Parts: sequence; structure tokens; C-alpha cells
Amino acid sequence: MQQNTLWYGADYNPEQWLDRPDILEQDIELMRKAHVNLVSLGIFSWTCLEPREGEFHMDWLAEAIDRLYAAGVCVDLATPSAARPAWLAQKYPQVRRVNADRVRQLYGERENHCYTSPVYREKVRRIDQELARRFGRHPAVVLWHISNEFNGECHCELCQQAFRDWLRARYGSLEAINRAWNTRFWSHEYTDFSQIESPAPHGERAMCGLLLDWKRFVSHQTVDFMKWERDSVREIVPEAKVCVNLMDRFDGFDHFEMAREIDVASWDSYPFWHRPGDTIEKTAISCAMMHDLMYSLKDRPFLMMENTPSFVNWHGVCKSKKPGVNLMTGLQAVAHGADGVLYFQWRQSRGACEKFHGAVVGHDGREDHRVFREAAQLGDVLRRIGRVAGARKKKQAAIVFDYDNLWALDRSMGPRNDGHGLWEEVERHYAALARLGVGADFLPPDGDPHGYALVIVPMLYLMREDLAGRLRAFVQGGGTLVVTMWSGVVDEHDLCYLGDAPHGLTDVLGVRRTEIVPMYDGETLRCVAAGGFPIAEAKAEALCEIAAPEGATPLMVYDEDYMKGAPAVARHAFGAGQAYYLAARFDEGFYLPFYRGLCKGRLAPAWPEPLPEGVLAVRRGAYVFLQNLSDAPVQLSQAALTPLETAIFEDDGSGAYKRLL
Amino acid sequence: MQQNTLWYGADYNPEQWLDRPDILEQDIELMRKAHVNLVSLGIFSWTCLEPREGEFHMDWLAEAIDRLYAAGVCVDLATPSAARPAWLAQKYPQVRRVNADRVRQLYGERENHCYTSPVYREKVRRIDQELARRFGRHPAVVLWHISNEFNGECHCELCQQAFRDWLRARYGSLEAINRAWNTRFWSHEYTDFSQIESPAPHGERAMCGLLLDWKRFVSHQTVDFMKWERDSVREIVPEAKVCVNLMDRFDGFDHFEMAREIDVASWDSYPFWHRPGDTIEKTAISCAMMHDLMYSLKDRPFLMMENTPSFVNWHGVCKSKKPGVNLMTGLQAVAHGADGVLYFQWRQSRGACEKFHGAVVGHDGREDHRVFREAAQLGDVLRRIGRVAGARKKKQAAIVFDYDNLWALDRSMGPRNDGHGLWEEVERHYAALARLGVGADFLPPDGDPHGYALVIVPMLYLMREDLAGRLRAFVQGGGTLVVTMWSGVVDEHDLCYLGDAPHGLTDVLGVRRTEIVPMYDGETLRCVAAGGFPIAEAKAEALCEIAAPEGATPLMVYDEDYMKGAPAVARHAFGAGQAYYLAARFDEGFYLPFYRGLCKGRLAPAWPEPLPEGVLAVRRGAYVFLQNLSDAPVQLSQAALTPLETAIFEDDGSGAYKRLL
Amino acid sequence: MQQNTLWYGADYNPEQWLDRPDILEQDIELMRKAHVNLVSLGIFSWTCLEPREGEFHMDWLAEAIDRLYAAGVCVDLATPSAARPAWLAQKYPQVRRVNADRVRQLYGERENHCYTSPVYREKVRRIDQELARRFGRHPAVVLWHISNEFNGECHCELCQQAFRDWLRARYGSLEAINRAWNTRFWSHEYTDFSQIESPAPHGERAMCGLLLDWKRFVSHQTVDFMKWERDSVREIVPEAKVCVNLMDRFDGFDHFEMAREIDVASWDSYPFWHRPGDTIEKTAISCAMMHDLMYSLKDRPFLMMENTPSFVNWHGVCKSKKPGVNLMTGLQAVAHGADGVLYFQWRQSRGACEKFHGAVVGHDGREDHRVFREAAQLGDVLRRIGRVAGARKKKQAAIVFDYDNLWALDRSMGPRNDGHGLWEEVERHYAALARLGVGADFLPPDGDPHGYALVIVPMLYLMREDLAGRLRAFVQGGGTLVVTMWSGVVDEHDLCYLGDAPHGLTDVLGVRRTEIVPMYDGETLRCVAAGGFPIAEAKAEALCEIAAPEGATPLMVYDEDYMKGAPAVARHAFGAGQAYYLAARFDEGFYLPFYRGLCKGRLAPAWPEPLPEGVLAVRRGAYVFLQNLSDAPVQLSQAALTPLETAIFEDDGSGAYKRLL
Repeated sequence: MQQNTLWYGADYNPEQWLDRPDILEQDIELMRKAHVNLVSLGIFSWTCLEPREGEFHMDWLAEAIDRLYAAGVCVDLATPSAARPAWLAQKYPQVRRVNADRVRQLYGERENHCYTSPVYREKVRRIDQELARRFGRHPAVVLWHISNEFNGECHCELCQQAFRDWLRARYGSLEAINRAWNTRFWSHEYTDFSQIESPAPHGERAMCGLLLDWKRFVSHQTVDFMKWERDSVREIVPEAKVCVNLMDRFDGFDHFEMAREIDVASWDSYPFWHRPGDTIEKTAISCAMMHDLMYSLKDRPFLMMENTPSFVNWHGVCKSKKPGVNLMTGLQAVAHGADGVLYFQWRQSRGACEKFHGAVVGHDGREDHRVFREAAQLGDVLRRIGRVAGARKKKQAAIVFDYDNLWALDRSMGPRNDGHGLWEEVERHYAALARLGVGADFLPPDGDPHGYALVIVPMLYLMREDLAGRLRAFVQGGGTLVVTMWSGVVDEHDLCYLGDAPHGLTDVLGVRRTEIVPMYDGETLRCVAAGGFPIAEAKAEALCEIAAPEGATPLMVYDEDYMKGAPAVARHAFGAGQAYYLAARFDEGFYLPFYRGLCKGRLAPAWPEPLPEGVLAVRRGAYVFLQNLSDAPVQLSQAALTPLETAIFEDDGSGAYKRLL
Repeated sequence: MQQNTLWYGADYNPEQWLDRPDILEQDIELMRKAHVNLVSLGIFSWTCLEPREGEFHMDWLAEAIDRLYAAGVCVDLATPSAARPAWLAQKYPQVRRVNADRVRQLYGERENHCYTSPVYREKVRRIDQELARRFGRHPAVVLWHISNEFNGECHCELCQQAFRDWLRARYGSLEAINRAWNTRFWSHEYTDFSQIESPAPHGERAMCGLLLDWKRFVSHQTVDFMKWERDSVREIVPEAKVCVNLMDRFDGFDHFEMAREIDVASWDSYPFWHRPGDTIEKTAISCAMMHDLMYSLKDRPFLMMENTPSFVNWHGVCKSKKPGVNLMTGLQAVAHGADGVLYFQWRQSRGACEKFHGAVVGHDGREDHRVFREAAQLGDVLRRIGRVAGARKKKQAAIVFDYDNLWALDRSMGPRNDGHGLWEEVERHYAALARLGVGADFLPPDGDPHGYALVIVPMLYLMREDLAGRLRAFVQGGGTLVVTMWSGVVDEHDLCYLGDAPHGLTDVLGVRRTEIVPMYDGETLRCVAAGGFPIAEAKAEALCEIAAPEGATPLMVYDEDYMKGAPAVARHAFGAGQAYYLAARFDEGFYLPFYRGLCKGRLAPAWPEPLPEGVLAVRRGAYVFLQNLSDAPVQLSQAALTPLETAIFEDDGSGAYKRLL
Repeated sequence: MQQNTLWYGADYNPEQWLDRPDILEQDIELMRKAHVNLVSLGIFSWTCLEPREGEFHMDWLAEAIDRLYAAGVCVDLATPSAARPAWLAQKYPQVRRVNADRVRQLYGERENHCYTSPVYREKVRRIDQELARRFGRHPAVVLWHISNEFNGECHCELCQQAFRDWLRARYGSLEAINRAWNTRFWSHEYTDFSQIESPAPHGERAMCGLLLDWKRFVSHQTVDFMKWERDSVREIVPEAKVCVNLMDRFDGFDHFEMAREIDVASWDSYPFWHRPGDTIEKTAISCAMMHDLMYSLKDRPFLMMENTPSFVNWHGVCKSKKPGVNLMTGLQAVAHGADGVLYFQWRQSRGACEKFHGAVVGHDGREDHRVFREAAQLGDVLRRIGRVAGARKKKQAAIVFDYDNLWALDRSMGPRNDGHGLWEEVERHYAALARLGVGADFLPPDGDPHGYALVIVPMLYLMREDLAGRLRAFVQGGGTLVVTMWSGVVDEHDLCYLGDAPHGLTDVLGVRRTEIVPMYDGETLRCVAAGGFPIAEAKAEALCEIAAPEGATPLMVYDEDYMKGAPAVARHAFGAGQAYYLAARFDEGFYLPFYRGLCKGRLAPAWPEPLPEGVLAVRRGAYVFLQNLSDAPVQLSQAALTPLETAIFEDDGSGAYKRLL
């Protein structure tokens, strides 16, 4: 987005302090001290901007922007659509969402408008365009923050009608819908479009095809609303760059679909730091996975739009980041491709439900506070490493991720209704790569595996026919493929494939699934090495497939119960490539040696020397970030790292590494 | 139902495959291979049979029946009322159920129609009679499957009115209702019938009499709806035999009341096989208890209408039956009185919420699949032991079971709102008899204890006056009676008896209850033998009664806390018989030696020689089934049994046992 | 209330037994035997008193009162408003409450009327005045029991309007409300009063100021309804004394606000006796805390209006009081200031949801029952110690308790949404004082610390400016103050104070809060003594504050993690007094030695000699109650106490103790 500058800043809400000019002034002063150069402005300012219908008050915002710009702070200007004024909700009830129980919400909360409502769209367009006209060409405004954390769904009559229209467009006919949803099951065939209604706790929950298409429609409608806002702004300011702030492991819409329509991906990052039993390394890897997903959405740098400098207010127990963690997390984001690190929030609000969310400036307003000091330190570091901005990442490994699969899996009944744990499954593979210093991208189901050395397909229950084809070609052409249990079960309508499984890949993998054995929490099956495979033992859990080998070489086998001897891990040469089959989820200890062996000679780690446990290396362009996430100091050949310390090196191309930090 | 033939088959849904004649053909072929001779047809076929109101399409069903019959497969023809077409639900909203919160359901799911709605009754009658006219005299149709798994309740205005009419008929006057429900408590006296409403989360929950009568009304209305369908069919085919498929430990209606109105009892059997911590023997006994309840409902053979050849799709963790379990369970059902073993389902559906329920034929369509092979093996065995069909069981022991008691107990507040565990209580007694090879029937509250050697009354909180009289006479006449804690507390209106308790039985038992002491989960009271009773120690749990002995001889006493010395187990001679009093629920280890001692000399076990742990013997007519449910082979005098193996002997009357299997 | 007489009795419901004159007669006979002298009458009698609108039947009640009075039993006459007749609820739907989901309740249950409804108020006034006219001057009627256990809230349109009116009166303008609630957060500014609605699950939950004011309004409206009834009675009988029965740790209204409007405080006491893991002493102290709160409400003797002689019917597991516990609890109530001990209930009802609640007379009607015998024994003891009646307690220590704080804390998000445990926090301080024999009062936020030697401020998150001032003056004047973590955070609008914290007390305490660190359940921080403080080690838990010392002397410090060395306990001399700062909640073992040291020389224990563990001493006026709550006999200088035994001494002023019991 910019050269040689990493963004640093926060959500900023001057509208809450208009009666306190001393505080507004102190804000500017403290921003300078913290090296802030970007703030998100106006996210929840609608009532201040339009206190009465059609009456716009924008001077306060103009003043804020001018004051910020004068202090060297740019603006990510928000459209205020995420929360509407009371007058609007009262005058136009249709803008308020209807819950799945078909009860319309009263006024309150936020991010709960109807995405379909023409009235809401019109009101949003009006204020977005007023903002665009007034501020769209202000040099401070470098980005547009469309609404906030889009989420949720509306079941009003307008949405029902829009859903039916969407279905009609997608399927052409009721007959095609009946076929796709297998409505003859339980005699649910539709004979008129008006019979179709969104899922409801007191209505339909049994037709998986309906449930899946409803998720797709909600995704479509959410993105469509975002496009409405984007286009409203661009009608006035055609060159406007837009972003939306996404959320961690959020399933409310297809993020790849959303990403196609925005300029910059960004996300709000709130890991559970310091949860008992979790190491900092584990939490950090879990967070890094989302960074890499964000990078993958547009295959380019993103923003960490929100994170807390200290604590959140909505965990069961809201732990503060311990000393050093904020610095480490800011640099970790940059390592994984962020071109900016922003906080929610600059200053704690005095009242209402988020007043105890952490902020750079707390209620005591002190700059000698640990949180402010550490935030200022990170600002200083980011200023010094600005040259990293814009650097791109190299393709190494890819993990196939399909939101349709997530939705379908969560809505399938059996074999394990206690949870499939797709994110957990993905994370086990990702974590091993992260520990090996191998970069991982997320590949959408319509993505191209070409260019990757390794493609991982974790629990791809819903596997589209065309993707199976591309995976086959990938292996044929020399690629290495890993496919896990419970893949290739259903097609894009959540209809089970008939015939052998995993559908489309049995010959690639050299195995055929015969049974799926779900395990209780804590229950495991012992697996042992076959034929000299270097992992002597592992524990299978969660979902354990039994497969008949059809050409594959078992590397590990089950060693218990009636599946004893069946392959737990198998390898199959196919074309010029190799396909690995993992029949189960395994204990966390399995994945690191498995991928170490698999990557050897195929994928170069980010850092040439072997790293001690807890030290992670991430490469971004010419830069390598080393972070010591253990609780002891470590000594590397070119750096000594205290706990939580980060070292940054620049690879000058000659194989020498120059230390930047 | 038939001579020398045990039924074997499954739910069959050809309507889901009408566009795949190859699959329909394969079905017939595989049924032959699996020795199938009965399928349930049409359970959810309404939209295929009547795609538009009044337009009937029955040719596809005619073809299916003909094709099946030609292959030697008979038909259990279903009425399709359990799930209605969308057009019907849309045109006649009154057919959709109203939940307890008084919100009418949207279209969706199944088994959720209003049992009162005249429109629904009329529409159901129409299609049932169309089916009866077309297929009622087809030689393949040997049974009618009325609707499916009746369950649930409707709170619409029509049902409210029907409830008031039912109350008026039952009580005659409001005054009688006020008295029966003790409405002066909390000033809830009714002065007009229109004030009476069904229980609601936002309405009445405090009047136990209302709660109990509502359950009775729902039971009545459910059975009444079934009768409406039955009679609709019989108007066309007077000789039609009907069954309904019941569910495990289901409390939605009085099963004895339902059973009076049908020809054949049947149930859908879905035990939690292979749950961690449960042995196969334990799960099998728990399942056997329901078989014996089913037999008791009409005192004659029943059908296992559904069970899975492999796994279900609705447990938290859907374990597959391990090798050998399906064969064992099929034969166990026959041992306990089933004349048929059927599955849900013949072939897995491709889509919708049950697509991962196990089936004889899976999505891969392979006959070399373990599940198909084991199903075919059972079919072969059932074919070979067809002579068992129709054999009756001898009266030995009876367990009194009253649905009114179940309902009242579940709706009483105190002494243990964390659950009374009536089914668990019943099962502890049942399991001991099962392990002793003693046959147990379930006796309804209006049943006759005459003819039994032993009658058990487990936690009969609600005890009708007349039953107490029959139990007294039973002991007087020489019977052996066991009564447990928390019996004889309330009358048929859930009004507490005034005076000594257990009401009507204090002199029979020779004890008088003084206190009831509920225990926390895991909390126990130590009990020890008194006067040489052979069980040295036991642990009392759940609910522990303190009683004053009035003639009974203590066999065990509490040995802790302030109830130390009070009787935990006592015996009393009354008339020519014996009455045993169990003051508490005891640990599972107590019951086997207790009943071994009690049965000795009174009740002959199914098999003459002592059986090793885990081996169960069940007698049905002249046949004795021995099943080895342990995980080791056992050697008996006349048979060696591998794990899960079943041996079947025929007693020729001379005391010699001829082995059939 | 009376001289030399302690009240003893129960709720009595003769209306349930009008068809059983034998039982009504037995009641009188048994009351005599149990030494009963007061019963609460008519709590749920509305339908018997007014079976049809405007038709009053009071003769049965007149007879009951006469019969009781003749037997020496006085009457606490109830208004029947807690439960209304069906005819009333049917004819006037507006009297039925509307839940937060905006659904009006159906008829049923109790204590669920709208407090605003003019119709309900009129109907209640009518019957209250009929009762007052007929019985208000009957010599038996010594007290009026206004309604029953006021609780809950109504969200109907009438209440919404009343809420808006209340807000208008409180704030004067919408602008003031917007400011107080910080509505610019999330753009929730109101522009019209009609936009304000009560909190709802499908509406507003984010504006903490609204949530808090709604609780205040509900409190106001509840008290206002009580006043309406009180004044209705007093219009007829101006000298009528009124009480309401309050509940344990109930947060539905401000008890201090309610107490101002009544003559006698009373409460319904239902501790969880004999819960596994809880000693009798622990449960007893937890109960004593509520006794002391009741005494504090009006700073004078109160009534234990309800307790069970045996068991309740609504705990998960309803344990019976073991032998001796009922006697002990009755005397404990008197020790803490009760002038009467009453039960719910005299006789168990036959039917409906409370039929298994314990009573003095059970369903068996026997006077040789343990429960009756123990109840009669307590009656006899109370008769003998009647001189204790009216005795007042001395001011020693005070615990500041503010219902606004409880409400605000429960509705704040962060730092610990898994629960703040305010009652638990209060109880830890209280229990230490109880074990030391030091009397503790509860001081409302507008109360005066003057006259106390010690004031404790546990987790006073919401601290009003004026209270901080009074606490400052208290220490200045020589008082000892204890303030814990998470105090002085917000003002009366739940707006965070800006600047240093705890607001208003940093100089008094000599510390400034810098961070608040929430802990997971089971997670602790080790603390160690600093500078010779006699408590060597403690464990901090739940919420741990980090503070910068500004003059205070650390007594204990954290010994772990990044807060190592920060003060956990500190002392600061301020003016003539001392202020103690507790930075965290500590393990239970901390508080006894802490307060022992702190009280030494400042506060005299109730009993001069050191007491063994489990023996508690309570002083009330000239009387000292010693109770042995351990499970072993103890020997004191002037008394030997068996387990659960109580000794009562009278201090004649000369230092000698005369034993009364």
C-alpha cells in the first residue's frame, strides 16, 4: 500500500470526547510519542454525523482529520453502517434484523441490520456519499473501512424473498432444487418457491442442502451489502481503496468471496494469550495461521486492523499481554505479511460495554503506564523497519480451505456430532509447517495448486469434482499431496458421492475408504510404524478412517481393535508425484516429524540452521524474522535471543544475512 | 404372525431412487443375497404419492411392491402421515404443531403435526384409504406401519379445547378438577373451563395435577390419532393388521394404552454400543430390557422394527457395531421374543440429515463391505432357525411399570431434583434377573400379578389404590414381593396419601417410612448385613429411605450417620408369602446376590448349569439362547462359545437340549 | 416488637384443609405442643377470599384467626397479592407480567404480576382493605405480611412508560441520559424518550448505564408496589405494622430502599445444609451473614420469617437437617438479632409443586416424627429465653454493601466475565470476623461509618463520590479501613472515573492501581510476607490488582510472574487512622489471621476466652451465644458443649456470665 512505511495506529473515537478538548489534544501528543501514523475513524459515529434524519454535522470530523493529518497521522475512514441511530431504527423498523425465530430485534447492540432492506441501503448510501464528498479527497484519507466486522444474518420477509430469488438464479428451477437437496427424503419436495424458508429452530433443520445454501446466500448477501457501500463511495471517489475487518475463524461468510471485492484484507486478532496449559508458542502459531489466511485471501500484504495492546473485555478471563508480548505480536504480524499493526483502541471509553477493553491510553490517561510504554516501543521499531512494507511471500506449501466445506461439515449429522474440529485439524498441519519454518498459504477450492511443492487437504468432506481433478493433475505433475480422513465424501450440494471414496482420489492415494470410526474425546487408537517408517508410534483420535489399500504403501498401521493392521498413514506414487494418506487425526506430536521427513529436500526452511524448540523463523521476501517464544534465552549462530525477543535479518541474495533488528 | 418364518428386512425407500433403475434392480439382487423377506415401505412417501392435493401417483409403489413380492419379499406398508408435503403445510397452517411457547412451527422436520386438527385427520384418512384401496389386498402386504415413531405434543387452540373436553369427560366438573389438582395451593382455583391451559414455559408449571393430566391427554390424543389412521385403513381392509414403531425408554405416551389398539408391537432399537466404560454385556442387557417391555405390551412376540446394521447418525459419537455385534443383537432380539429383525435402513440416502445413518447398503454400493456381509450372515441364520417364530415366553417374574408414575415422578419437585432415575432403578433389578436367566415381564398398573412367582415394585411413587390391593392379595396368596424406596407416595392425582407410607403396604412390608434422604451423585451410605444375611456390605445411593420396622426383619442396616441401624433391606412374612423392602437404591453389585438368594427354589433359570460371567441364557418357549458377551471364549458342558457367539438349543421336553445353532 | 417473647411459628394454610375439620383441630393441638405463638396466614388465599370478582368470603378466615387466638397464637396477616385468581388474570390480561422477550405470561405460577398495572393495583387495594376492615383490629393480628417474596420484573408497555417517566424525573433531560449512559459509544444516542426500552435478549444489552438504571427502576417500582399495599392497609388501620419477607443474596431490588418503607425486616432462610465438602460451620456462617444483613437493614431485630424444619423441595438434592441442626439454626438466628423463628410451613400440602417441602407436620400427621419433636423442642427453648427479645447489637465492624455496585459489577464486561463473586468476596471478610466473635453490620453507601472501629470495603467497583469522602473522614478521624481490589472504578452511572484509582482513595490507601489481572478458576499467584508481616504466605486468586505504592507499606508482596514484588497487602497511616489495601482475593486461610491481627486491641470478641475451631460466639446485647458447630464435644471454662449444642449466657455487667441455657 505504501513504500517503506508500516502503518501503526488504532481505532480512534474522538466523538466520545468532544466535550473534552484537553483530551483530544493529549491524544495527538501521545500519538506522536507512540509513532502512530494511521487511525480508523468514524466506525460508530453515525449519530454524531447525522443526529437527525438528513441533517449532517461533519465539522467535528473535519477538525479531527485535519488535526491528525497535521500530526502526521493518516486516516482509515469508516462508513458508519455497523450501528445505526435510534431515530433510524425507530422510524424504519425494517432495518432491524429478524432472528431465526422470526422475531424482529428491538433497537440496540450493533452489526444487526438487515442486509436486504432497501431503506437501510438507501440511508447508508446517503451518509457514505456525504462522507465521500466531504473527505474522500482529503490527503489524510488513505483507506476506507467499510462498516465493521460484518456478521450475522436476517430472516425477515425481504430476506426470504431475496433468498428465493437467489435460489432461482442459482438453480433455474424448483425441480433442480428438489434434486440438489434430496427433498424426497422425509417427503419435503417443494412445489412452489414460496414454500422455501430459511432454517429455523421451529422450522426446517433437516435438509442439509437448504442449510448449506442458506449459508451461501447469507455470504452472498453480506458481500453484496459491502459492495453496495463500496460502490456508493466509489461513485463519488472512484479511486477509493476499501478494506473490511475480518474475524478469527469466523464462518459467517466465504472470506475468499469477500476478498475478491475489496482492496485490502484486514483482520481483528484476539488470541487467548496466557490461557492455562497453552504455551506462548502454541497461541502464537494459532494466531499466525490466521495471518497467513489473511495474506492468502488476496495473495498480498494485509493489515492487522485490530488487536489489543493489553487485554480484551469479552473472554471469560481477560488476561493482559505480559511484558514483551505486544512487541512480539506486532512483529509476528509483520513477519507473516502485515503492512500495518493497529489496535482496538486508542483510548478506553468511559462507559458502555467495552469500557474495560484494553487501549493504548487507559482511564488514568498516563503515558508512564506499562501498556503505553510498550506500545510506543513497538511504534518505534516499526518505524525503523519500514522497508519491510510491501514485501511478498514465496509459495511453498498450500492448505486447501473451503468455506462450503466448513459449513457443510458443521451441519452434517454423524459420525461425530460432538464436533469435527476442522480448524483444529487444519492447525495441526499448519503448526508443523510453522515449526519447520515453511511458509503455508490457504488455497480456496477454485485455487490453483500449481507452483506449490506441497498441498495439504485436511478433512475436505465437501470436495468439488473440479478440485479433485486439479489435485490429481498436481500429483501427476510431480507435486506432493497430503489428504486426510473424511475427505471427498459429498459434492457441492452436500450429496454423498456414490461409489468409492475419497471421491476422485482413490487411485491417486491408492486407498479406498471402507469405514469411518468416530472416537470419544480422550479415546485413542494406537498406531505403529510399518516397514521402517521413522515414526514408531502415534495415537489416532477424533475420526479414524479404515481403508482398503489399493496400491499404497502403509507407513503406519493401526495396532488395536478390529482395524488392527489397516493403514493409518500410507504413501502412493502417482505420476511424477507422491500422495500421502492420513487415515485419522493424530496426536500433536505426530505432525512435526511427519512433515519434517516430507519436506526434506523439497522445501527450504526460512532459516538455514536448526532452531531450538520454541524459536520460530518466518520468511517474508528478503526478510527473515526469528522469534524466541520459549521462556529461556537461546543462542543462535548470528543472534542471541532473550525470551520473546525478535531478530530480523535481510537476505542480500548472496546468502549473507544482515541484521535489521 | 407367521409360522416357521422369522422376518428379516429393513426400511426401504425406493422413492429416493426412481431416477436410478440400476440401483432399484441392485436392491432386489442384494436383498436376495441378504435373505430379506420383509421391508417397510412408504414411511415418508407422501409427496411421491400425492404430489399435488388430490392427485395420486401410486404406480411407482405398485411396481416396487410387485418387484419385491416377486423376489419373495413381503411388505409392511406405511401410512405416510409422519411427514407431510410442503403444499399441505402451506395451504393448511393448522396442521403444523404449536410448541409449548405457543409459537406455531414453520414447515420442516417430521412427526410434528397436530393430532387434533380435523383438516390433517381428513387429509391423512384420504391418502391412507387410497393406499388401502390400491394395496390393501396385495398378497405382499402383510402388515401396516401406522405413521412413524409417534412423539411430541401440540399446544394449539384446537388442542387446548380438546384438552378441556377430555378433562370435562374425565372429571365431570371443575370442582372435581380443583380438588384433584389441589388448586387452592397458590390460589389457582379455576372458575371456568376456559381458564385451563396446557403447561407452558411462560405459564403454568406448578400444578402437578395439571402437568400429569396433560401428559395423559397427550397420550390419549396420540393414541386417538393412531386409531383414526387404523380405522381409516380398516374401513377399506377390515382384516388389516397394524403396528406402530415405538422408541427406547420413550415417555411421550402410555405404551400399554397404545398397545391395546394395535396388533403387533414393534420398536426401534438404538443402544449406545461401545460407549467407553460400558461392557457389551451391560449394553446388551439394557437393550434386552426394552425387548421384554415390548413383549409384555401385548404378551406376545413383537418386531424389532428398526436397528442399525452398523451405526446411527445422531449419537454424540456414532460408533459402528464391531464385528459380530450385529449377529449377536439380531439373535438376542429373537431370544427375547422378536419374530422379526429389521433395520433402518436398507440403503443410505444421498442427502439430508440421515445420510450418514448406517444401512445394509452404503454409498459405495458394495456387497463385499463388512456391514453387508454381516447382515447377510444374520439373514442366513434367521432363515435356518425360523421354527422359533411364534414361540411364547413363560411367566416368571414381573416388574410393575406405570407410565403415570414415570410422568408424575419426573414432574415432582423434591426430594431429588437432580433426577430420580426410574429407568436406572428398574434396570438394576432387571439386570440381576437377566444374569440369573430368569425371565421378566413388565406389568402395567392394572395388570394381574397372578401367575408370577415374583413381583418387583421399583420406586412406584404413584401407586393406585387398587394395585396396592392386588399386591397385598398376591403376597397373601403366597407370592414374593419386592418394594423399593419412594413407593406409595401419591395417588393417581399426584396427591400425597395422608397417613402411613408406603400407602397400602405398610402391613404387608412390616415397615413404615419416616424420612427420605436424597444423596448427591457419588455420595453413598454404607450398609451392612444384619443377622447373618449373606450380603456383607452394600452402598446405598440416590434416594435412601429411613423406615421404622413394624414387624419386618432387617436383613441389612445402614451403618453410617444418623440413620445408622435403620433397615436398608428387610423381609416380612405376610399371609402365605414374603415381602421384601429395599430402603434405597444400592450399588450394582448388590442386586445379583440379592436376587440369586431370593429366586433360589422359586424360579428356574433358563439354563441348568451355572454360567460364567458375561454369558447370558434366555429361554423362549422350548428354545434356549446362550450368548457369550464376554471378550474371552467360554466352555460350557454342551457348547464352546467364542466371544459374541450365540448357541441355540431346543428343549425336547425330556430334559435334553438339542442344538439348533 | 414485643417484650420477653420470641415469636415462634410458621406459614399456615388452613384454606387447603377446609373440608377436613379434623385436621384443622389437630393443627391447633399440635401448635400448642410445639409452643407456637405466631403464624403467617393468608399468603395465597385470594381465591378463597374472593372466589368471584367483588364477592368476599372471609368467614373461614375469621374462624381460623379466632381459633388460633384462643390457643394463644397471634397472626401475621398476609395480603394475598403474590398470587392472583384465574378469573382476575383472565379478565384483565394487563395484570400478567411481560417477560424480557416481550411475551406476556399466561396464567400460572406466582409472584409474576405487573407492578405498574393500575388494574392490578386497584384489585389488590380492594382486597387488602377488605382484610384490613375485617381483621385489622383483631387482637391476634400483630403484623401484616405484605405480599410474598417480591421478585422479578415486567416489560409491558405500561412499565416501559413508567420507566421513561422515572428516567425523566431522575435526569431531567434526554441529553443528561445520553451523557450518563455514554450513548455516543456505538452511536446509540437517543433523540426521543420513546426510543428508550428496557433491556432485552433481542434488544439493548450494551449500554451499561441503561442496564443499571433499569435495575434501579425495577427496585423503585417493586418498592412502590409494596408501598401501595402498605398504604392501602394503613388507610384503614393507620397503626398497622408491616413486614416483607426477603430472600438470601437476592439482587432484585435494593434491600435498604425497601427496608426504609417497612416496620420489620424479615427473611426466608434456606441454606444448603450438608452439601458435600461444606462443614456445618461454613454453612452456618454463610447463613449468619444474611442474618446480620437483615439486622442492618433497619438496625434493629428482625424475623426469620421462613426456614425449613427439615428440607426444601427445590435444591438439586434436598438434604434434611440432621438431628440437632434445627435447634441450632433457630438459636443462631436469635443470636444474630432475630426476634422470631418461623417455618415454611406448618403442614405439608397434599398436592402441587411444594408438597415435598418440609413442614412441622408431615403427610403422616404424626407428632412422634423426628421433625415435629425437634421443632417442639426449639419452641420450648425459645419460650424459656424470651427475655432476649428486643436486645440490640453493638456497633463493631461494618462492611460497605451497595446494591448498585452488585448490579453494575454483574453487568460489566471484563476483566473477569466468568464471575466476580462479590458475595463470595464479602463472605470471606465476614467469616473471619464471625470466627473472631466480632459483630459485623452492613453499611449502605449512604450510611455513616461513624461509630465503627473498622470499616471494610470489599470490591466496591461502583463507588459514589460522597462515600469516598466519608471513608476518608473516617480514617482521618482514627478509623481503620480495609479496601480491596477493583474498588473505586466507576461512578454512580457506571462511568469510569478518569485519573488515578481507586478513585478518591489513593492518598488514603497510599497506593495507585495500575493493572487488574483476572485469574482462571483454580489459578493463583503466590504472595509472601514483606518486612516481618506475620502471614508468611498466601495465594491470590480471582482478581489480582497491581498497584504502585505511593506511601503505603507493603505487608505482603506477589512472589510470581511479572507482578513479583508488587504489594499484595499494604498498610498506610492516614490522619489518625490506618488504611489497609488488599490487592486481590486471597485463599480462605488468609483472612482469619489478617483480621485477628487487625482487630487486636481495637475490637473486643464476644467471648473472653479463646475458642476452639468450630465454636462460634455471638453477642447480642447482654447475651452471648456459644455454638459448637464442630463434630466433637468441646470443653470451655464455663460450659461443655456437645456437637451442635448452644449455650447462652447473660452478662450482668459485672463481667460475670450467667448461663441461661
